[in-house]
Amino acid sequence: MSYGRVFPLMRAAAGQYWPAYVDHDFVRGLKDGSLPKGAFLHYLVQDYLFLIHFSRAWALAVTKADTVAEMRQCAATVHALIDEELKLHISICAEAGISEAALFAAEERTENLAYTRYVLDAGHSGDFLDLLVALAPCVLGYGEIGARLRAETPDATYADWINTYGGDEYQAVCRDVGTLLDDAMARRLGDDPEASPRWAQLCARFKVATRLEVGFWDMGLRP
Amino acid sequence: MSYGRVFPLMRAAAGQYWPAYVDHDFVRGLKDGSLPKGAFLHYLVQDYLFLIHFSRAWALAVTKADTVAEMRQCAATVHALIDEELKLHISICAEAGISEAALFAAEERTENLAYTRYVLDAGHSGDFLDLLVALAPCVLGYGEIGARLRAETPDATYADWINTYGGDEYQAVCRDVGTLLDDAMARRLGDDPEASPRWAQLCARFKVATRLEVGFWDMGLRP
Amino acid sequence: MSYGRVFPLMRAAAGQYWPAYVDHDFVRGLKDGSLPKGAFLHYLVQDYLFLIHFSRAWALAVTKADTVAEMRQCAATVHALIDEELKLHISICAEAGISEAALFAAEERTENLAYTRYVLDAGHSGDFLDLLVALAPCVLGYGEIGARLRAETPDATYADWINTYGGDEYQAVCRDVGTLLDDAMARRLGDDPEASPRWAQLCARFKVATRLEVGFWDMGLRP
Amino acid sequence: MSYGRVFPLMRAAAGQYWPAYVDHDFVRGLKDGSLPKGAFLHYLVQDYLFLIHFSRAWALAVTKADTVAEMRQCAATVHALIDEELKLHISICAEAGISEAALFAAEERTENLAYTRYVLDAGHSGDFLDLLVALAPCVLGYGEIGARLRAETPDATYADWINTYGGDEYQAVCRDVGTLLDDAMARRLGDDPEASPRWAQLCARFKVATRLEVGFWDMGLRP
Repeated sequence: MSYGRVFPLMRAAAGQYWPAYVDHDFVRGLKDGSLPKGAFLHYLVQDYLFLIHFSRAWALAVTKADTVAEMRQCAATVHALIDEELKLHISICAEAGISEAALFAAEERTENLAYTRYVLDAGHSGDFLDLLVALAPCVLGYGEIGARLRAETPDATYADWINTYGGDEYQAVCRDVGTLLDDAMARRLGDDPEASPRWAQLCARFKVATRLEVGFWDMGLRP
Repeated sequence: MSYGRVFPLMRAAAGQYWPAYVDHDFVRGLKDGSLPKGAFLHYLVQDYLFLIHFSRAWALAVTKADTVAEMRQCAATVHALIDEELKLHISICAEAGISEAALFAAEERTENLAYTRYVLDAGHSGDFLDLLVALAPCVLGYGEIGARLRAETPDATYADWINTYGGDEYQAVCRDVGTLLDDAMARRLGDDPEASPRWAQLCARFKVATRLEVGFWDMGLRP
Repeated sequence: MSYGRVFPLMRAAAGQYWPAYVDHDFVRGLKDGSLPKGAFLHYLVQDYLFLIHFSRAWALAVTKADTVAEMRQCAATVHALIDEELKLHISICAEAGISEAALFAAEERTENLAYTRYVLDAGHSGDFLDLLVALAPCVLGYGEIGARLRAETPDATYADWINTYGGDEYQAVCRDVGTLLDDAMARRLGDDPEASPRWAQLCARFKVATRLEVGFWDMGLRP
Repeated sequence: MSYGRVFPLMRAAAGQYWPAYVDHDFVRGLKDGSLPKGAFLHYLVQDYLFLIHFSRAWALAVTKADTVAEMRQCAATVHALIDEELKLHISICAEAGISEAALFAAEERTENLAYTRYVLDAGHSGDFLDLLVALAPCVLGYGEIGARLRAETPDATYADWINTYGGDEYQAVCRDVGTLLDDAMARRLGDDPEASPRWAQLCARFKVATRLEVGFWDMGLRP
């Protein structure tokens, strides 16, 4: 999956962390169904909390956009996250007897705190681009994982998860976010963002966020 | 219009500024149609810019909410503002030959800068309540003006504007925001918010925002 | 006064607003002593409130710096503002019978709200550079005015004010801020900041802040 | 050490996490000199990065203060951190052959990211109190540890560290921060902050920050 022009460049600059993220044991367990159900539910509970703070970060992006088009796309993402994606977590957890109140009251693991608050701080300390490159690895990495797992004839155990992220709707979101990233870069850094003095720092942010994704999967395997 | 329990208390605490806002000459001109068309268009252009920054402030509220319900309501307001209300301004201005690009490029008047950036700073310097009481006078005051003008057999000249803010949809928004304000206060200050040491400061913020509404109408009369 | 390389370029890009600011009637009144004492005190009261929010904006810059050197310089400016410059306002006002409590409780004029909150929002919506170019016109414009008035054999009436901003200490601050601006630009935009897509937007921010300085002097003449 | 009235209440509400923090194996190793030098240097490098972001959080507090006195105290703390405390780390590390550039370029561990960004987000999502209770466990816990270790005839190996935090100067800082916390609470929540609906949430923030201190010591033992 390329999702635009900038994403593949940043993905390459993330070095070892990118394959460690998209080909993590947790991901393999989702594919072949070997992931223990307890680990999956534990991950879903933490991911519910993650999505709340990730929604906050996309809302922060609305406040840092330069154009109405950027504002609209970020606001639409907030809507998709807190009105659609959260409901998936709520319904799967409800089936397992975990209420939304229990989800909301769960203790955030350190790996979760580190990732979500790092993204928010990327926005507060920097500009729209700093925030966007910290948001990108989660959105686009899940798209890459979902598309691959869906194509690789997975076990049916975690089909809901795989079809969500590998499905047409989420893949369209990824293409839109890839375009948003390309356009936002061009607007602020010009036609050759790699030549900008900011490029290395933006790649470093993308890399830290990717590293924190690896840590999130690691945490998922330790209920 | 009461829109809940807290709003009428804050409105009363705003003293002279509240009637100066809701019964401003600009409002009278909307009602009897005597407002010059040029002043109305000038106001709409500034209000377009106002709504962009007002949307940013509601998005900031998403980042400062304590519950998912608060997040959802604030995110829905962002959506209503940038996907619905802005379109009204765009279409009326388009009819008058003003493109959206021209709207976006218009110079923000000082009164506009003062109001929108004051609201945003209320959010950044304080908590969810500080932001909400700075947002309330605009949302609820327009509801109060719209409902009154609609009931007072207005001239047809500015019927679009009057029916928008006096209409059922916007009135429902106002009731929801009134409830949000009541619930957010109860959650943070308890059952008797007037007894909190923060009450006076929150009323002062509401009052400043109301004063800045008066300034916005004043500016509207000076194209 | 040039105060570095970037400042003169931005000053030129501010067009008519720069001379309207540094050669304002208020400034002429400070020079020849014709400014009414009441207007000067009114200005000082508003400027006390201005400096509180301007200090907040420099503190915000500490949170948005990329290097420890940038952090240290911004923190030193916060210190200079709230531990030194504010005291000047407090002592002059005290001589006129205005207590610090009265200063703090004074109603902020719309022009004051517009300027200070615009600067803070420049920081929150953008990055360190967006904030710095919004801070620059006040710091460096006062330096330019102070140096010129001091050299032009002014009337003694407002000698305290003129010697503060025209004096060696404040002039050194201006040179340091000019260097900070040059270095911060080079670090983020490269050796030729004028070639960056962000240059026009940064100049636009500088220009708005300069326009708001003109508005502040206008307000000073209307006690 | 009590450092005021509110701190002991919050410390008690942190339950098991407080003794886990102040009586951690890392702390015991500092006292009896059994902490490996490599672990100490690793901790110092991470603590250097911690202090940079902790300074940013105190600078954020300047932007969220309600009074000039609160602003001044927070600004003085920023100064103490980035002009004094950081220099201690720089000099000890320099003796061990670690340059300041190497310190600044070190990779932040997940536990470090989690703690510092959580504190910053406490400020951005909440008000001055939310930020202050997230800052308090580090400042006051180090004071408590330093005072105790200094009194308990420690081994001389880590005397510099122990005398810094157990010394008169740092103990005075702790008393001032305890007073700041008490006064800030009284100002916003009244004379009986425990009766406020916000009390439980503020204690929860203090507890999370304390838990993250435990995680920071844990990380210190894993160079």
